[in-house]
Amino acid sequence: MGDWDPAGAAATRRRRATLTAGRTASLQPVNGRAPTACESSVTANVCANDGQRRRDRSVETVRCHKTQESLLTSTSGFNNYRGVLNWCVVMLVLSNARLFLENLLKYGVLVDPVQVISLFLNDPYSWPAACLVIVSNVFIVVALYTERQLSKGSFSELVGFLVHCINFALMLTFPAAVVLLVPSVTPVGGAFVLGTYTILFLKLYSYKDVNLWCRELSTVKAKKLARSLSYMYYFVFAPTLCYELNFPRSPKIRMHFLLRRLSEMVSTSTRFSSCPHQWMIPIIQSSMKPLEVPNHLLWLLFFYWFFHSSMNFTAELLRFGDRQFYKDWWNSETVTYFWQNWNIPVHKWCLRHFYKPLLRRGFSKIISQSAVFFLSAFFHEYLVSVPLRMFRLWAFTGMMAQLPFAWFVGYFLRGNYGNAAVWMSLIIGQPFAVLMYVHDYYVLNYGEEAQ
Amino acid sequence: MGDWDPAGAAATRRRRATLTAGRTASLQPVNGRAPTACESSVTANVCANDGQRRRDRSVETVRCHKTQESLLTSTSGFNNYRGVLNWCVVMLVLSNARLFLENLLKYGVLVDPVQVISLFLNDPYSWPAACLVIVSNVFIVVALYTERQLSKGSFSELVGFLVHCINFALMLTFPAAVVLLVPSVTPVGGAFVLGTYTILFLKLYSYKDVNLWCRELSTVKAKKLARSLSYMYYFVFAPTLCYELNFPRSPKIRMHFLLRRLSEMVSTSTRFSSCPHQWMIPIIQSSMKPLEVPNHLLWLLFFYWFFHSSMNFTAELLRFGDRQFYKDWWNSETVTYFWQNWNIPVHKWCLRHFYKPLLRRGFSKIISQSAVFFLSAFFHEYLVSVPLRMFRLWAFTGMMAQLPFAWFVGYFLRGNYGNAAVWMSLIIGQPFAVLMYVHDYYVLNYGEEAQ
Repeated sequence: MGDWDPAGAAATRRRRATLTAGRTASLQPVNGRAPTACESSVTANVCANDGQRRRDRSVETVRCHKTQESLLTSTSGFNNYRGVLNWCVVMLVLSNARLFLENLLKYGVLVDPVQVISLFLNDPYSWPAACLVIVSNVFIVVALYTERQLSKGSFSELVGFLVHCINFALMLTFPAAVVLLVPSVTPVGGAFVLGTYTILFLKLYSYKDVNLWCRELSTVKAKKLARSLSYMYYFVFAPTLCYELNFPRSPKIRMHFLLRRLSEMVSTSTRFSSCPHQWMIPIIQSSMKPLEVPNHLLWLLFFYWFFHSSMNFTAELLRFGDRQFYKDWWNSETVTYFWQNWNIPVHKWCLRHFYKPLLRRGFSKIISQSAVFFLSAFFHEYLVSVPLRMFRLWAFTGMMAQLPFAWFVGYFLRGNYGNAAVWMSLIIGQPFAVLMYVHDYYVLNYGEEAQ
Repeated sequence: MGDWDPAGAAATRRRRATLTAGRTASLQPVNGRAPTACESSVTANVCANDGQRRRDRSVETVRCHKTQESLLTSTSGFNNYRGVLNWCVVMLVLSNARLFLENLLKYGVLVDPVQVISLFLNDPYSWPAACLVIVSNVFIVVALYTERQLSKGSFSELVGFLVHCINFALMLTFPAAVVLLVPSVTPVGGAFVLGTYTILFLKLYSYKDVNLWCRELSTVKAKKLARSLSYMYYFVFAPTLCYELNFPRSPKIRMHFLLRRLSEMVSTSTRFSSCPHQWMIPIIQSSMKPLEVPNHLLWLLFFYWFFHSSMNFTAELLRFGDRQFYKDWWNSETVTYFWQNWNIPVHKWCLRHFYKPLLRRGFSKIISQSAVFFLSAFFHEYLVSVPLRMFRLWAFTGMMAQLPFAWFVGYFLRGNYGNAAVWMSLIIGQPFAVLMYVHDYYVLNYGEEAQ
C-alpha cells in the first residue's frame, strides 16, 4: 500500500484484526499478493498512478461495500423527507378525489353561490355574523383617529390611553354580548365573528404600541406618524398581527403562485364542507373514539389551508414580503418548540407585545411565560365557549395543561421520542378537547331528537 | 443611515419606491427624523456604536418583518421533514395498537409457536417449502467446492464454468419444478422458497464472478483465494448480494440497536398476520378499488420491515458494516431514481454483475438498461407466477411498462410533480398488478365456494 491514505489503511488493518470468526488462518495470503490486489483497489483508485485498465476495473467491481448507517436510522443524520410530505398530499388528493366524485355522482352540486349572496342581500338581519364583521370597522377608525390626535398633540398620552382602553374593552365584550344574546347567531358564525374581532384586537393593540414606541424613541415631535386610512387597511388585511411603519414588500404579484394557492384553498374547503355530515352521524351514535384520527387530519388540513394557502394568497395579493407564517413545528422535539413555531403571527405578537414588555417590567421568565399561556388559554376559551354558549373551561384547562406537559416532555424525552410525544398530544389531546365541546353541544341541542 | 450596509439600504429604498399603493404622499417624513429612527433600528443594532438603551429596545420591537418565503413553498429550499415521518409512524402505531387490542379481546392468542415447531418435526414431508430451503445448502457447497478446485488449479476455467452453469440452471429450475408439481406447496410457501433460491442464485453468481476477477487480476497464481465454509455461510446470511473478499465489519454488536430492530420486526409482522382476513372478504365481494390504499400501506410496511428492521437486525448480529440497504427513494423525482434507490442490494448486484459487464462487452447504455429491466421483469414474473401456478405475464408487463413510464415522467414532469407521479404509480399501479393475480387466484381456487 502507498502512503497516501495511512489512516484508511490502518483502519482496514484494524478491521481485519477483528475479523477472526468468519475466516480461518489458512486464508491469510501467503505471498501477500492476491487478496491485496483486490483489497487495495479503492486506494489504488484514489492514487490512480499506474492507470492500468485491469486495475481500474477492479476498483469498481471487487470492492463495493463500506461501513455506513441506513438513512432511517436516527444516527445517520439524514432528514430530507420532502417526498414523505408529497406522499401525504397525494394520499389526501386521491382519497379526496374519490369522495368528491362519489358525492357528485350521488347528490350533484348542492351549493349555489348565487343563492347564498342573494339570500344575504335580501335579509341582512338574518346574517348577524356578517353585520358584526361590518361593524368592526368602527373600532378601526376609532384607533386610527386616536393615533392621529396623539401624533398631532391634540390628545394627551393619558386621554389617548383611555380612549384605546375603552375601544379594546368594547372590541372583546360587544361581539361576545351580541353572540350570546342574539339567538340567530349560529356557532360557526359566532366563532367566525369572535375570531375576526380577536385578530383585530391584537392588530390594533400592536398598532397602538408601535406608535407609542416611535413617539418615545424620536427626540423631535413625530407629527406625521399617523398613517393614512389606506395604509391602516393594508395592515388590517395583511397576514400579520404586528404593526410596522414600513412592511417589506415583494416586487410583484406572481400570477402562477396566486392561482396555485387559490386552487389549494378551493380544493381544501370542499373537504371541510363534507365534515358536518361525516361528524354528526358517529357523534349521535356516541362512538367517540374512532373520531380522533379524522379530527386530527382535519386540523392538519385546516393548518395547511389557513397558514399556507390562504395567508400566502393574501400576502401575494398584497405584495406582503414576510411569508414566515409557521416554522418547522412538525419537527418539534419539545412542547415549547411546537407552541413557538406553529403559529408565527400569534407567537410574534405575544413575544413583542406581551412577553417582552413583562420582562422589561421586571417579571421573571417563568412568570412571563406562564402569563402568555394564561392569555392564550383565555382567548382559546373565549373563542369556543361564547359561540357554543357553554362554559366548560375545557379549552382553558387544555391550554394550561400544556405547561406541566411541556415540563414532562422536556425532562424525560429526547429527539424522535420527544417529537412522537408532541404528535401524540396533537392526535389524541387536542381533538379530545374539541370533541368534548361538540359532544356536549349536540347532547344539549339535539339530545332529545336523537333519542 | 450609516455606510455599513449600503446594499441593504439601497434595497430598502427600492422597496419603498415600489410601495405606492398602500400609502399616500402625506406620510413621507417631513423632517426625516421620526420614521427613520424606527426604520434604521435594525442597522443601528448591527453597528451598535451608541449603545443607547432606547435604541437597542427599538431594534427588537419596531422592526419585526423581513422578506422570506414560507417553508412549505418549494422555492424555500427547506426539506427537513423528519417529523412528518415520525407522524406516519405514530399514526401507524396508534391504529395498529387499537386493532391488536381489539383482536386480542375478541379472539385471544391464536398462534401457538410450540405447536408450529412440533408439527414440523413430526411430519417433515408436509412442509415441502422448508425441506427445499434445507436442500439449497447443496448448491452452496457445490459452488464453494468448484471455486476451491479452480483456485487450486484442479479444475480448468472451462470445467469450473460448466459446473457453475449447471449449478445455476438447477437452482432456478429445480425449486420451480417442485413448487409446480407438489400439490402441498402453498402459494406463500412457494414464494418464500423461490425468493430464497433467487437470492442465493444472485449471491453465488456474484461469488463466482468476484473469484474469477481476482484470479484474472493477480499476476501470481492465487492458490489461497478459496474461502472457508464458515466465511461462505457468513456471505450467505449477510444482507448483501455482492461478494467481497473482506466485508467491512462493525466493531461490536450494539444490544439496544438489535433489540429495537427486533421489536420493530415483531410488531410489524403482527400487522401482516391480519392481512389474509382483511383481504379475502373484500376480494370475494369483488370490490377491488378500495383495496389499493391498504395494499400500498402494506407495501410500505413490508419495505420498512424487510429493508430497515430485518436487514439491520441481521447486519447488527453479523457485525456487517455496510447498512446502505436503500437510499432516499421517497424523494424520487424520476422513475429511474426510484428503481436505482429503493432496493440497493439488487441494484448493486445488477450494476456490478449485469449492467457493467454488458457495457464492457460493447453494448450501448440504452440496450444494457433495457436488459436490466428485462432481467428484473423475468424474476418478478418467476416469483409470482410459479407459486400461484398461473402464467398471466402481468408482473412482467408491469415491470417492462416502467421503461416508457420512466421516459414520460423524466420528459414531462419535474421536482415535486415528478415525485407525485412516482408515488401515484406506487399507490395505484403496483397494488393493481398484485390484485390482478390475487383476484384470479381466488376466482380459480375459491370461485365456486364463494358462489
